Amino acid sequence: MKTLNIGLIGAGFMAKAHSVAYAGMPMFFWPAPAIPFKKTIADINEAAARDAAEKFAFASYTTDWHDIINDPDIDVVDICTPNNVHAEIAIAAARSGKHILCEKPLSLTTSQAKEMYLAAKNNHVKTMVAFNYRRTPAVQLAKKYIEEGAIGKILDFRGTYLQDWSADPDSPLSWRFQKDICGSGALGDIGTHVVDMLRYLVGEFTSVNARTATYIPERPVQSGMSDSLGNTKGGADSIRQSVDVDDQCCFMAECANGAFGTIEATRNAWGRNNYITFEIHGSEGSICFNYERRDELQVCFAKDGDDRRGFRTVYTGPCHPYGEGLWPIPALGIGYTETKIIECYDFCKAIMQDQEVSPNFRDGYAIELISDAILESAKTRVWTKVKEVAEN
Amino acid sequence: MKTLNIGLIGAGFMAKAHSVAYAGMPMFFWPAPAIPFKKTIADINEAAARDAAEKFAFASYTTDWHDIINDPDIDVVDICTPNNVHAEIAIAAARSGKHILCEKPLSLTTSQAKEMYLAAKNNHVKTMVAFNYRRTPAVQLAKKYIEEGAIGKILDFRGTYLQDWSADPDSPLSWRFQKDICGSGALGDIGTHVVDMLRYLVGEFTSVNARTATYIPERPVQSGMSDSLGNTKGGADSIRQSVDVDDQCCFMAECANGAFGTIEATRNAWGRNNYITFEIHGSEGSICFNYERRDELQVCFAKDGDDRRGFRTVYTGPCHPYGEGLWPIPALGIGYTETKIIECYDFCKAIMQDQEVSPNFRDGYAIELISDAILESAKTRVWTKVKEVAEN
Amino acid sequence: MKTLNIGLIGAGFMAKAHSVAYAGMPMFFWPAPAIPFKKTIADINEAAARDAAEKFAFASYTTDWHDIINDPDIDVVDICTPNNVHAEIAIAAARSGKHILCEKPLSLTTSQAKEMYLAAKNNHVKTMVAFNYRRTPAVQLAKKYIEEGAIGKILDFRGTYLQDWSADPDSPLSWRFQKDICGSGALGDIGTHVVDMLRYLVGEFTSVNARTATYIPERPVQSGMSDSLGNTKGGADSIRQSVDVDDQCCFMAECANGAFGTIEATRNAWGRNNYITFEIHGSEGSICFNYERRDELQVCFAKDGDDRRGFRTVYTGPCHPYGEGLWPIPALGIGYTETKIIECYDFCKAIMQDQEVSPNFRDGYAIELISDAILESAKTRVWTKVKEVAEN
Amino acid sequence: MKTLNIGLIGAGFMAKAHSVAYAGMPMFFWPAPAIPFKKTIADINEAAARDAAEKFAFASYTTDWHDIINDPDIDVVDICTPNNVHAEIAIAAARSGKHILCEKPLSLTTSQAKEMYLAAKNNHVKTMVAFNYRRTPAVQLAKKYIEEGAIGKILDFRGTYLQDWSADPDSPLSWRFQKDICGSGALGDIGTHVVDMLRYLVGEFTSVNARTATYIPERPVQSGMSDSLGNTKGGADSIRQSVDVDDQCCFMAECANGAFGTIEATRNAWGRNNYITFEIHGSEGSICFNYERRDELQVCFAKDGDDRRGFRTVYTGPCHPYGEGLWPIPALGIGYTETKIIECYDFCKAIMQDQEVSPNFRDGYAIELISDAILESAKTRVWTKVKEVAEN
Repeated sequence: MKTLNIGLIGAGFMAKAHSVAYAGMPMFFWPAPAIPFKKTIADINEAAARDAAEKFAFASYTTDWHDIINDPDIDVVDICTPNNVHAEIAIAAARSGKHILCEKPLSLTTSQAKEMYLAAKNNHVKTMVAFNYRRTPAVQLAKKYIEEGAIGKILDFRGTYLQDWSADPDSPLSWRFQKDICGSGALGDIGTHVVDMLRYLVGEFTSVNARTATYIPERPVQSGMSDSLGNTKGGADSIRQSVDVDDQCCFMAECANGAFGTIEATRNAWGRNNYITFEIHGSEGSICFNYERRDELQVCFAKDGDDRRGFRTVYTGPCHPYGEGLWPIPALGIGYTETKIIECYDFCKAIMQDQEVSPNFRDGYAIELISDAILESAKTRVWTKVKEVAEN
Repeated sequence: MKTLNIGLIGAGFMAKAHSVAYAGMPMFFWPAPAIPFKKTIADINEAAARDAAEKFAFASYTTDWHDIINDPDIDVVDICTPNNVHAEIAIAAARSGKHILCEKPLSLTTSQAKEMYLAAKNNHVKTMVAFNYRRTPAVQLAKKYIEEGAIGKILDFRGTYLQDWSADPDSPLSWRFQKDICGSGALGDIGTHVVDMLRYLVGEFTSVNARTATYIPERPVQSGMSDSLGNTKGGADSIRQSVDVDDQCCFMAECANGAFGTIEATRNAWGRNNYITFEIHGSEGSICFNYERRDELQVCFAKDGDDRRGFRTVYTGPCHPYGEGLWPIPALGIGYTETKIIECYDFCKAIMQDQEVSPNFRDGYAIELISDAILESAKTRVWTKVKEVAEN
Repeated sequence: MKTLNIGLIGAGFMAKAHSVAYAGMPMFFWPAPAIPFKKTIADINEAAARDAAEKFAFASYTTDWHDIINDPDIDVVDICTPNNVHAEIAIAAARSGKHILCEKPLSLTTSQAKEMYLAAKNNHVKTMVAFNYRRTPAVQLAKKYIEEGAIGKILDFRGTYLQDWSADPDSPLSWRFQKDICGSGALGDIGTHVVDMLRYLVGEFTSVNARTATYIPERPVQSGMSDSLGNTKGGADSIRQSVDVDDQCCFMAECANGAFGTIEATRNAWGRNNYITFEIHGSEGSICFNYERRDELQVCFAKDGDDRRGFRTVYTGPCHPYGEGLWPIPALGIGYTETKIIECYDFCKAIMQDQEVSPNFRDGYAIELISDAILESAKTRVWTKVKEVAEN
Repeated sequence: MKTLNIGLIGAGFMAKAHSVAYAGMPMFFWPAPAIPFKKTIADINEAAARDAAEKFAFASYTTDWHDIINDPDIDVVDICTPNNVHAEIAIAAARSGKHILCEKPLSLTTSQAKEMYLAAKNNHVKTMVAFNYRRTPAVQLAKKYIEEGAIGKILDFRGTYLQDWSADPDSPLSWRFQKDICGSGALGDIGTHVVDMLRYLVGEFTSVNARTATYIPERPVQSGMSDSLGNTKGGADSIRQSVDVDDQCCFMAECANGAFGTIEATRNAWGRNNYITFEIHGSEGSICFNYERRDELQVCFAKDGDDRRGFRTVYTGPCHPYGEGLWPIPALGIGYTETKIIECYDFCKAIMQDQEVSPNFRDGYAIELISDAILESAKTRVWTKVKEVAEN
């Protein structure tokens, strides 16, 4: 069985998620498309890199990500850094002929995204952006129902991604609140996940009308690049600095196929943790999903008899998408690990079978174009067309 | 104990809801502000009027609503007709010095609404628009928490009113789909309920940005004015005519106090029946409500300890708003009847205590102004200011 | 249209529930089987009786319930007193040829229940015991599915009735905690409701194995017969007396048709308000119900495809049992009032059509026999046969 | 960092769950107590063993489990076989001084369990029985609340474990339906999980009163020892053989501390997938859990104000048990993998720190004694005392 050598850059929590996926993927999906081998992990902090290599079972570590790019044995470059270095690494990786898995959002700017996309395209490498939530089996089941026509023509939808980890004004000013590192706030951090999900399920977004807000104008400075996702808090005497990105983002969207919807993303919704939801209304049925209860999909079929119609709560299992690789009965439990294992499987399969997979850099770039239109609309307060992907 | 003589106009399902409220109100809220006496019911169809009088226990009936206006013993005129005759009746009633309870939406047009409001104001009669859902005890509890500051400053909100009774293209073209009778579609029929609720909970809407759609362009004609709410369906050979109102309406709204939100109303959401919901995020907590599970309010308080914070499911009961008049323990059950009994209680109390009650004609008029801005924005596709109530 | 003259005995909260039902029933179910006329209300306390007559719209009142029995114009005697006087009144009413609606549980003892049943039978009067919860449309829909065979042969079930209004040791020692007035505690007060519901849905109980407990051995004495359902509390200096009934009752049951189940009733379940639930497993499907969300029934059909099977949440509406009389769309809202209106309708219909209705005194007596077996089993700690109804 | 060499016996789905846990544990809990090294996997079928070694990343494989016992480098023997060979392997492993992780239920008989316990005790090895569900963070949070006294003295509880994978009469007669291999049916397979959970949360069970049933008396024979958990089905012409274990088991239990409860386990509950639930009522609050929504715990505190009391939905995260090792915010997602990683962590920690962990073989044996009492009670139909653990 073929091995894929992995070089992973960045040693934060996403490195953990990707590492357990590399280890677990063949255990779940067998025969595996390839056996991932965790060759090198890179972090600018040497102690962090060394620690990560041991913790995540990499064969070696480095403080210079170029070592990974330059290693001819590395097949896959996996980018788990803050957003502001995605582009440089990805472009270098593409030019070195490495396949690339990149955390989301793809880049700081659309021009970066375009460069990344074209670099990958021109160098014929496989790419994936880590919008893992669309790979939740229940979301895949939604896709299946939609493709089968089970809910008819899609009329409208609503999506949300609500969290509360930064609702406290004392939660720290990590890089996720600094525009030059993250690009945008709730929009890029979480909103793009639900944009990816609904663009995948419903269709291409063509026009948006948005509003953004920064509710907490300054936050306590924290040292280093670490990102505690709100789990450490600044005290009354903390030095505070300005937040220059959105805490909340909401927009209406029109799709190429006539569907319409709204999407809302906020990290200031007390009581919501990882509340990624959608509700899709079609001419023949409706579908609802809530990632906080991710083993379930709600679906209502118009054609059910009037006296027994209602949302069905379907727990995904062996007879549903990815079911053969996962657990033998529904509700044993899909966790974050399982979503990342599925992601890893699909990416490795795409590489080995020399086929495109989605969401790839083109999708990531398309989502950056949507994000751009959203941020522009939030300023101009008018419906704003989403620009088209530049193919060269 | 004082009696209030009631004249009710229109003998459809709302007449039933109001009649049971008149009968039940003193049984629930005692001592009652007054004992309603169901004196006269009017319907243009004589058989319907006679039947309604017996069924709803009115002392008399008429086919001419002017008889009610002209009856010096009538204290309250209750308007349960289709929307297109609200204005004429209400203005006549006001000029005759009758207090007026009017079904929603208040009128076909804002100019009608203005006339109605001013007629009532100038004739010093008490008015109420029957946005009963805001009187659900759980919604009142939300109001109480907000007023106490329990969720802090309101940041943003989302409201929905989703139904499916007209999602079937064979459900009939009742007056609810004819602009000259109903004024607007999903917006006026159901959207205004959620507008009323959120305007009440959050604050005045100042600007909106909307989209409307008609998903089913024609429907089977049904005879007469009856309104089966989709419970009869046309066959393949039905004569069909155009729908000229919205099936779906969605908008973003800005409030005077800086709060922002989205509202969505549709009668084409398979699996949703009377899905009136809101979710409100404040700086110190969140509140959620779903009328389909109306005995409950969900509330999350930021100040709860990190290790035990989460949405609380509070069932309303004796210690909550209106609790003393309702049932002795929570979850015995709030139904549509109970919401209408509360409405009747508050309106009778306003009359007897000579105090304003809300939502009155001024509120109904304000909501028409919001609706106007919504429909205009849906056409112009730009943010549209809500006009101010004209006080004379 | 025929009138039924009602004499109602007892002026507490059940009197309210019954009164609003008499007023509302013809408004909901039309043509009504008869028009109830609230002729006389009786309470031993004259002020309470006079007040109740005005509040509940009775034409007259009395302090002596015999006046109702002796009034030849009274058609129906409605017993809303504490349990200890049910028997005497009901037997007198039966002997006077009155039809009888009696609150649950039927009696203090099975010998009383037997006498009541036989008195009614021998005097050919119609009877009903007010187990109203089984009349919730969602419960009726469960019955319909079961009768259609939609869930196959019933294998097993679980029922609960959980409340918390007396979980606080300071909630008062009302008559509901005194054996000589109430007969039993949680069992009779609430457990019998769920026994009625499951006996109705599943089949006759033949054998039980029970456990009871009194968690709070003494409570503050309250004056008078009033019953605040925990809404007033005694302070630290209250005089306290012993509780001699069960706070909690749990039992396993075997049914004549081979089905098996457990039932649990407690008034000490913090967070549960009126949590009447059942879950029934059949060879071809399952059904679940929770009265706290009473507009809904959950049903799973085995024959649904593997990839789309799951509990359906069906909201009851016009096409479901009693739907034509209730509200025109699902989830407008079934409250306690609506359940009592349905009860009133069925009882009046039985009288006018000279047909038996269930649950009648025979059912109430059968449930007393089950309760007897439960209490005996709780003492003897062995499986105990339920005695058969004595037909003379 | 110390390495623990693992020898795993049995190559079915539990081998996968354990293998991903060994790989992932250090990635989650760092510094890890030790690094597990997957040295040898054994299966009687050589192809299966070889395949498993590659798939699960073991360094070697064997068809003879004695090789693992006899390998002096192996530190931990992990038993994932059908139940009938647990005892032989475990006793041999203990005598060889290996630490033992054994899948549940511990054994076919209590005498085996006793031998296993004593062998481990006498040989001073650490043991664990893989009742992983109690390690779900939400269950651990329940334990924390109970230990803090947050719900007061425990009064009563209800536990369920409901599945439907064998509700279809055509699902195959795997070893889980053959008494000589599995010992008991729904009781041992799933019921013991909920027994473990409630014994852990509430206290020692002293006496039980049970009922068992076999609903589907015969099933299609399947070849080999494989266990598809219902995912393959026999056709009409299948050869069928008798099931000699329970499909359903239900019992009442008394605990040493006075608490009382019921537990129900069935594999014939259509619509339930892995429905492991409990509801615990205490004098000061209540707790509910449903594994199908395992990121959440429901808790109601009596001491919350009357006007804001209700079940709180707490999503477990970093500030809850095991939170530091898991994901950085709640509801990223606890899956089956995460529960097994926690189990692995606790077992490795126990070994390295030379401390007892629970549930160990003593607990597994205690649960066998409870199971014995249940099965005996189901036959004799009387309350049956649970025998005490024999310490030698």
